Amino acid sequence: MEKTTDVLPLTMNSSEKQETVCIFGTGDFGQSLGLEMLQCGYSIVFGSRNPRMSSLLPNGAEVLSYSEAAQKSDIIIIVLNGKILVDVSNNLKIKQYPESNAEYLAQLVPGAHVVKAFNTISAWALQSRALDASRQVFVCGNDSKAKQRVMDIVRSLGLTPLDKGSLMAANEIENYPLQLFTMWKFPFYLSAVLCVFFFFYCVIREVIYPYVYEKKDRTFRLAISIPNRVFPIAALTTAGLGLPPWCYCGILQLYRGTKYRRFPDWLDHWMLCRKQLGLIALGFAFLHVLYTLVIPIRYYVRWTWTNRTIAQAIAKKESPFSTSTAWLSDSYVAMGMLGFFLFVLLGITSLPSVSNMVNWREFRFVQSKLGYLTLILCTAHTLVYGGKRFLSPSSLVWYLPSAYVIALIIPCTVLVIKFILILPCIDKTLTRIREGWERNPKFSESALNGKTDI
Amino acid sequence: MEKTTDVLPLTMNSSEKQETVCIFGTGDFGQSLGLEMLQCGYSIVFGSRNPRMSSLLPNGAEVLSYSEAAQKSDIIIIVLNGKILVDVSNNLKIKQYPESNAEYLAQLVPGAHVVKAFNTISAWALQSRALDASRQVFVCGNDSKAKQRVMDIVRSLGLTPLDKGSLMAANEIENYPLQLFTMWKFPFYLSAVLCVFFFFYCVIREVIYPYVYEKKDRTFRLAISIPNRVFPIAALTTAGLGLPPWCYCGILQLYRGTKYRRFPDWLDHWMLCRKQLGLIALGFAFLHVLYTLVIPIRYYVRWTWTNRTIAQAIAKKESPFSTSTAWLSDSYVAMGMLGFFLFVLLGITSLPSVSNMVNWREFRFVQSKLGYLTLILCTAHTLVYGGKRFLSPSSLVWYLPSAYVIALIIPCTVLVIKFILILPCIDKTLTRIREGWERNPKFSESALNGKTDI
Amino acid sequence: MEKTTDVLPLTMNSSEKQETVCIFGTGDFGQSLGLEMLQCGYSIVFGSRNPRMSSLLPNGAEVLSYSEAAQKSDIIIIVLNGKILVDVSNNLKIKQYPESNAEYLAQLVPGAHVVKAFNTISAWALQSRALDASRQVFVCGNDSKAKQRVMDIVRSLGLTPLDKGSLMAANEIENYPLQLFTMWKFPFYLSAVLCVFFFFYCVIREVIYPYVYEKKDRTFRLAISIPNRVFPIAALTTAGLGLPPWCYCGILQLYRGTKYRRFPDWLDHWMLCRKQLGLIALGFAFLHVLYTLVIPIRYYVRWTWTNRTIAQAIAKKESPFSTSTAWLSDSYVAMGMLGFFLFVLLGITSLPSVSNMVNWREFRFVQSKLGYLTLILCTAHTLVYGGKRFLSPSSLVWYLPSAYVIALIIPCTVLVIKFILILPCIDKTLTRIREGWERNPKFSESALNGKTDI
Repeated sequence: MEKTTDVLPLTMNSSEKQETVCIFGTGDFGQSLGLEMLQCGYSIVFGSRNPRMSSLLPNGAEVLSYSEAAQKSDIIIIVLNGKILVDVSNNLKIKQYPESNAEYLAQLVPGAHVVKAFNTISAWALQSRALDASRQVFVCGNDSKAKQRVMDIVRSLGLTPLDKGSLMAANEIENYPLQLFTMWKFPFYLSAVLCVFFFFYCVIREVIYPYVYEKKDRTFRLAISIPNRVFPIAALTTAGLGLPPWCYCGILQLYRGTKYRRFPDWLDHWMLCRKQLGLIALGFAFLHVLYTLVIPIRYYVRWTWTNRTIAQAIAKKESPFSTSTAWLSDSYVAMGMLGFFLFVLLGITSLPSVSNMVNWREFRFVQSKLGYLTLILCTAHTLVYGGKRFLSPSSLVWYLPSAYVIALIIPCTVLVIKFILILPCIDKTLTRIREGWERNPKFSESALNGKTDI
Repeated sequence: MEKTTDVLPLTMNSSEKQETVCIFGTGDFGQSLGLEMLQCGYSIVFGSRNPRMSSLLPNGAEVLSYSEAAQKSDIIIIVLNGKILVDVSNNLKIKQYPESNAEYLAQLVPGAHVVKAFNTISAWALQSRALDASRQVFVCGNDSKAKQRVMDIVRSLGLTPLDKGSLMAANEIENYPLQLFTMWKFPFYLSAVLCVFFFFYCVIREVIYPYVYEKKDRTFRLAISIPNRVFPIAALTTAGLGLPPWCYCGILQLYRGTKYRRFPDWLDHWMLCRKQLGLIALGFAFLHVLYTLVIPIRYYVRWTWTNRTIAQAIAKKESPFSTSTAWLSDSYVAMGMLGFFLFVLLGITSLPSVSNMVNWREFRFVQSKLGYLTLILCTAHTLVYGGKRFLSPSSLVWYLPSAYVIALIIPCTVLVIKFILILPCIDKTLTRIREGWERNPKFSESALNGKTDI
Repeated sequence: MEKTTDVLPLTMNSSEKQETVCIFGTGDFGQSLGLEMLQCGYSIVFGSRNPRMSSLLPNGAEVLSYSEAAQKSDIIIIVLNGKILVDVSNNLKIKQYPESNAEYLAQLVPGAHVVKAFNTISAWALQSRALDASRQVFVCGNDSKAKQRVMDIVRSLGLTPLDKGSLMAANEIENYPLQLFTMWKFPFYLSAVLCVFFFFYCVIREVIYPYVYEKKDRTFRLAISIPNRVFPIAALTTAGLGLPPWCYCGILQLYRGTKYRRFPDWLDHWMLCRKQLGLIALGFAFLHVLYTLVIPIRYYVRWTWTNRTIAQAIAKKESPFSTSTAWLSDSYVAMGMLGFFLFVLLGITSLPSVSNMVNWREFRFVQSKLGYLTLILCTAHTLVYGGKRFLSPSSLVWYLPSAYVIALIIPCTVLVIKFILILPCIDKTLTRIREGWERNPKFSESALNGKTDI
């Protein structure tokens, strides 16, 4: 912060492109970064404990001892006093150390301006320019001028810097590359368990039962027919779990009579992954649509239809037209298609770039109103599909009801609860609670106390 | 702006996380924000007119009188002199006051650095961490250092600050949360009117007419058959209105002989919502595709096909193969599918994140060339679908032509006008006008005058 | 950088909105920009060589000589000393000049703060507010305060400034509007050639051959049947070329025994456009799905099915049910649908806003694991589709095998190579190479030398 820095604050003339950058550390990332920056016109000096051994380094670069290298350059990437110090390090596991590497470094070298950057980019990707993944480089640091200069370097490498603020963010940035679909794990395992369970449930009803009682080989149903029962069930169930957790929150708030107590951890986690649940449900719905649309192409279906026609033709008997069957068949198909359409709309609005375009009121409108409408349509689709057979004893196989009957449990429960919550008397109480009213103010205060201490 | 501020400009050491933040106002938002910031490690002091009454506040926070609270903290959220002053207020309706709240505040407290932030985030969302909607917090303010510090706070809450520049932007930011699909209203109502009109038009032709003359119950057609006539008509019409407004602009520019006169307001508004019209058309096209693909699964269709086959089998008569029918049937289906494919492409390029990736030339190429190609394919699809029956008297019912004939009016008109506009002689004049040539320079000047005064 | 600038660093009071902005140049863009800024409340002064001739300019604006205009205003857009100088210029072709216009300007007017902006926005779009394309304005410049003020102007026009760093980025920004799908050219032409070749290949087999030998008119197959053979072939081939170039890199690294040599240019280019190849393959797959799902609606197909049924009914003979055929038919359809589903997932993750949300590990997992799984499913889909007929002599027509046999060559090769590369012994060597080990260190060094000099 001497006077010199103030004279040319951020100005970097084009002639100054030959800035000398010093890189300490000749590891994988240091090499890739040096090579790229060399080719962008920077002069590179590597600092090494043993300069003569470093034969792997790109050739335009000088290799010097730490002290020599440091004196030669203006920006030092990793280690030294009074200069900009870019920390590219990563940890091996989440929360390895109590504080972030960058903050630790800043304590070790008090005079240096530590800037965290580049750790979210893969060395291999940087070298092979295979940057079709995210080009974002998270940058954070306490000194804004140092941060600006590092961001300029990032930009000149063809990457996009994203300012994440002060060094407090370093911890988050260091943990970022270690995550592997954290939010997706629970929804994924849940839906996997659902699929496996319902798959075997349907296998028992549709493959094993006919084999045992009628000695018929129905194994070919494993390929399309049974998946096409499992997918809609999984879709309805995950949608029923994922779309409306606001209503579980409502119940809890009503029960507690306050909004000032934190939700329990499991509900918090559930709320955070409800978008993922919804998207997985959409995936199952998409598969269900595909599997349904290919029905008339399947050999088994065509064979059945053809043989039924031939039998009728030989018997010279036309089947009469039933208007009620036409109504049932058409309306359950129509409701399914409309539900799928709304579901796709919901999926599109959950794309990050689309949800950034809508404000909170619009997002809530879409997710809440459209979410429930979708769930109602899909539930009705399943109910009408069942039609007259619904819960009839003849559809029981070994006392097991049809799979779709089980699928209806969760969405129907959710819709009934929602219906109760929007009854005027209950809705009024809930609105008052959400505006800050409390049934028992003392109680909430002590609860908050406890939470805050933790 | 005393010397002290210059000494530590943006540096916020990690130990400084215990910054004391003062929040004035114990309303809904103040409480949520305070609670969150407490849990992020800030010390919170609430300023209140009546400190003893404020039992609802989170417990880690102190509640003091305004003056006490202000002295204790470094950043004040809402009101006081010489410090950073974050305005989170919203209005109840658009354009409630002539100037923005933030600008009004800046006038009231001349020494303070007013920063507008947080007003686009819902209090409830902030508290319940249900932030799957936009995590963007619009921030604006005249003092860049104050803005930086507020942006750091935003980041530490896990949100993404978006710098909207100086306090001039406050007005826009304050109006933002009040909007509810402003641009979608006109396209939505237009398409709703179209749907209702064509629905009843088709009901008259396909349900009431057969009932009156043949006493046949065709009500089941309400579920799929009639929607599947309404959707493509609505799609074609809205696409015809939405895709090519450049051509209306062209006509107007030709007629006026200048490009320097503003378009009338209705055309301006129309041009601004043509993207929405296009997307609604895509929605209808998607529904049309779904409704068409389920045709062979429908009970009514299968019953018709089966009975026709049985009748032929009993009569021992095979129908001969007609190559021309095969050609007509296959080509209208193929054109429809290609049109839908291009339409989906157009829809994908209109996603914000995709359109940010393409430059203006590419976007214009896609929207203009691909837009017209899509319209041509879809119009041809409808024309060939009509085939020989097109305008034949036998298809008139109560003097009403088939619905698709009406659907063709708008797209055909648009295509004819476009075709005229690209005739060499007219295209040349238009290009000259767009390059700045004027048929009557005086006229345009006075017109601009008038507009500018308004 | 006098004292005055330090006193009001970025503060722009709302009363200051009447800043006078001087625009030099009365061309197309200057006029549009002036008009817009007038309506945003700025005072505009145009500088012109011949002030009296400039009748085309918006009327609120003054037109003065260069020197008069420059004295009146605070921000000058294009040319003058000691002030902010916004360069909006574009070149007519890529790499027209050795250095960027903005850098050239900065050399001509050493005292001015040159900021590059607005050149990526179309003049016509700005005037007609038809800004549904990208609203991003790339801004770069060496002086950060000047850049901030220009970014504020950009924001007040309703556009989004994107800081691209120092003036070094000007070259890239100037070339940006000249690109027209640069990365898409090679994949597009490749797929066009593939389509045309396979189209005529199928025409020979399915239209010309039956015409020559059986005098049958099969031309109607041109509309749907033959495209539906060409699309899956094109999809498989482009996916085979596009999805797994990591495996070609692996071979090259194994062969060279080092990772420090640059890949040859053609492989570099190929790797850069593999995302485009993948998306084109997805487009073809989508068309293939659409064309397949309409099969039961087509006149030709229904005629065939009906007549076969009638013939069987007349002969009073039902065809027996073949479980193995049902298995084959169902499993190839199921594999195709699952492959398509995964392909759509891959396509969604390649949307810019989605890929920005995932970190490098997640992206690599999706693209690599899911990519190969998709390719395996689609290849298996084609293999099982062939079923027993695969390579049987009876399917040869004029010694030409079925088209799908040719389509299998590339994906099968890719999968075999991949399979070899993940054999433990080879995988170990490759991992060592990617960690920096070299079979022949000297060799790589000289190679890098050569590259760096170029």
